[in-house]
Amino acid sequence: MNKETLIQVHEKVKPYVHRTPVLTSELLNDMCGSKVYFKCENFQKMGAFKMRGAINTILSLSDEQRKCGVVTHSSGNFAQALSLAAKKTGVKAYIVMPKNAPQVKKNAVIDYDGDIIECDSNPIAREETAEKVRREKQATFIHPSNDDQVIYGQGTAAKELLEDQPELDFILTPVGGGGLIAGTALAAKYFSEKCEVIGAEPKNVDDAYRSLQSGKIEFNDNTNTIADGLRTHLGDRNFPIIKENIKKIIRVEEEEIIQAMKLIWERLKIVVEPSSAVPFAALLKEKNEFKNKNIGIIISGGNVDLKNLPF
Amino acid sequence: MNKETLIQVHEKVKPYVHRTPVLTSELLNDMCGSKVYFKCENFQKMGAFKMRGAINTILSLSDEQRKCGVVTHSSGNFAQALSLAAKKTGVKAYIVMPKNAPQVKKNAVIDYDGDIIECDSNPIAREETAEKVRREKQATFIHPSNDDQVIYGQGTAAKELLEDQPELDFILTPVGGGGLIAGTALAAKYFSEKCEVIGAEPKNVDDAYRSLQSGKIEFNDNTNTIADGLRTHLGDRNFPIIKENIKKIIRVEEEEIIQAMKLIWERLKIVVEPSSAVPFAALLKEKNEFKNKNIGIIISGGNVDLKNLPF
Repeated sequence: MNKETLIQVHEKVKPYVHRTPVLTSELLNDMCGSKVYFKCENFQKMGAFKMRGAINTILSLSDEQRKCGVVTHSSGNFAQALSLAAKKTGVKAYIVMPKNAPQVKKNAVIDYDGDIIECDSNPIAREETAEKVRREKQATFIHPSNDDQVIYGQGTAAKELLEDQPELDFILTPVGGGGLIAGTALAAKYFSEKCEVIGAEPKNVDDAYRSLQSGKIEFNDNTNTIADGLRTHLGDRNFPIIKENIKKIIRVEEEEIIQAMKLIWERLKIVVEPSSAVPFAALLKEKNEFKNKNIGIIISGGNVDLKNLPF
Repeated sequence: MNKETLIQVHEKVKPYVHRTPVLTSELLNDMCGSKVYFKCENFQKMGAFKMRGAINTILSLSDEQRKCGVVTHSSGNFAQALSLAAKKTGVKAYIVMPKNAPQVKKNAVIDYDGDIIECDSNPIAREETAEKVRREKQATFIHPSNDDQVIYGQGTAAKELLEDQPELDFILTPVGGGGLIAGTALAAKYFSEKCEVIGAEPKNVDDAYRSLQSGKIEFNDNTNTIADGLRTHLGDRNFPIIKENIKKIIRVEEEEIIQAMKLIWERLKIVVEPSSAVPFAALLKEKNEFKNKNIGIIISGGNVDLKNLPF
């Protein structure tokens, strides 16, 4: 991984993504005792930063590969992201999803012309089904977070944030599969002298926190968190980057996530999904550590069911 | 009223207000068959465009007037706006509010150091109490919408929108007390060759629609609408401007307001109050009239009780 490649990736994805705005709130600054800059990837196309990695991966394929399409397994934002990125580039996207995934998530993929292949709701069925599609269609498998091109793509959000706010002391990101925090760590390393990247994770799925402690990829026994984008674990492509660059992961309780989410809705006036509120919850929890600093927070996405809010 | 004054007003208020972003959504464009530019005054300080008029009015006072403070009657966004504008300029703000106003609205004023004076919940008590405060404190009364400086101030939102999007064919605004649409009409007249301003109003409180028809200020028999910022009627300062410049007011049903609000939350990922959704509801209702046009919509505010959503 190197700086020049991340610069090229950013140029390549620019025509396909929004340069999302950075929002601030005096009241939230006062609450935290620091200056907080929210990079609003909830305003990104399809509503999440995942569009960046998805489009970069497809743009990196050969013509031959593009003809056969791409396949992934996801019932979350990456399913939509890959479908939309594929649609924009005239590529076929096969999305492996559990049979019992909510209809609203299936519809979102269908809206972007993604081709859903259903499987049983367990990791083995999911991977076997994806592998079957890959073989049958000669499609390229794209992992939602454990892929170099995905990592570079996700890093473009922090690159933009540092262009807008070069004086950041810290960037906080949520940690799910590890693609966002790995890309953010690269961007901070390449484009800032001093900016340190810190992870934020629900205590109930603190696999990344434990992975940093043990030095190997850890897993979650259960996935019982409202932050449904963060239930996954790290992978062999992103973990080395995380291990080398991330010194700290802050863990937060479910109630802290909900309160932080409510504050963001009420004060920033933006719709964010629970996973997006995790880094702000972490900042509130350890605000004394960040006194008078300039903090960037990546608001990861805004795809939420309005009928099912936690407040 | 003249162009030069509006330019000066904009320079004067700039240090006190956010230049709010303009958001777009491909999906909403496709739904409407036009290009829609949302001017996000929900991101304005205190969460609504009202800050613009409030600060301009206070900045227009003499030193003598500033010493004695300002008084208004409002239980809505103008109460907060005048309190915050007064606080920022070291002026005392007296806010007349009905005894039975929700505590959350009282707290918002108290947060901005506004001084609440309670009155009975009827228009006569409200005006008498404001007049009493005015006399006792020698304070300057500032009407939330029927005031030239307020009208100029509110016009700065459309001025910014036209600077960002000079090719607008139409700007749609909600119509409540008339300050926003009057200011917007002036901005469009001064800063665009072709942009026409259209009002949007809940059918249940269609006083402005009827006023344009009859040629005199009409009132509402009841105020039964979810768009609680639009229950008021026009005044003698803004009605002449509206009569001269506004050709059309589109009326929408309550259910149309709720559906438009939900679309804005889901697709633009922003928190808006029901009044803000009225112009977009109007556009959806008459989308055939606006085919392939460039439409600006002023999102008036984002102050909403998350515990009491209509969807």
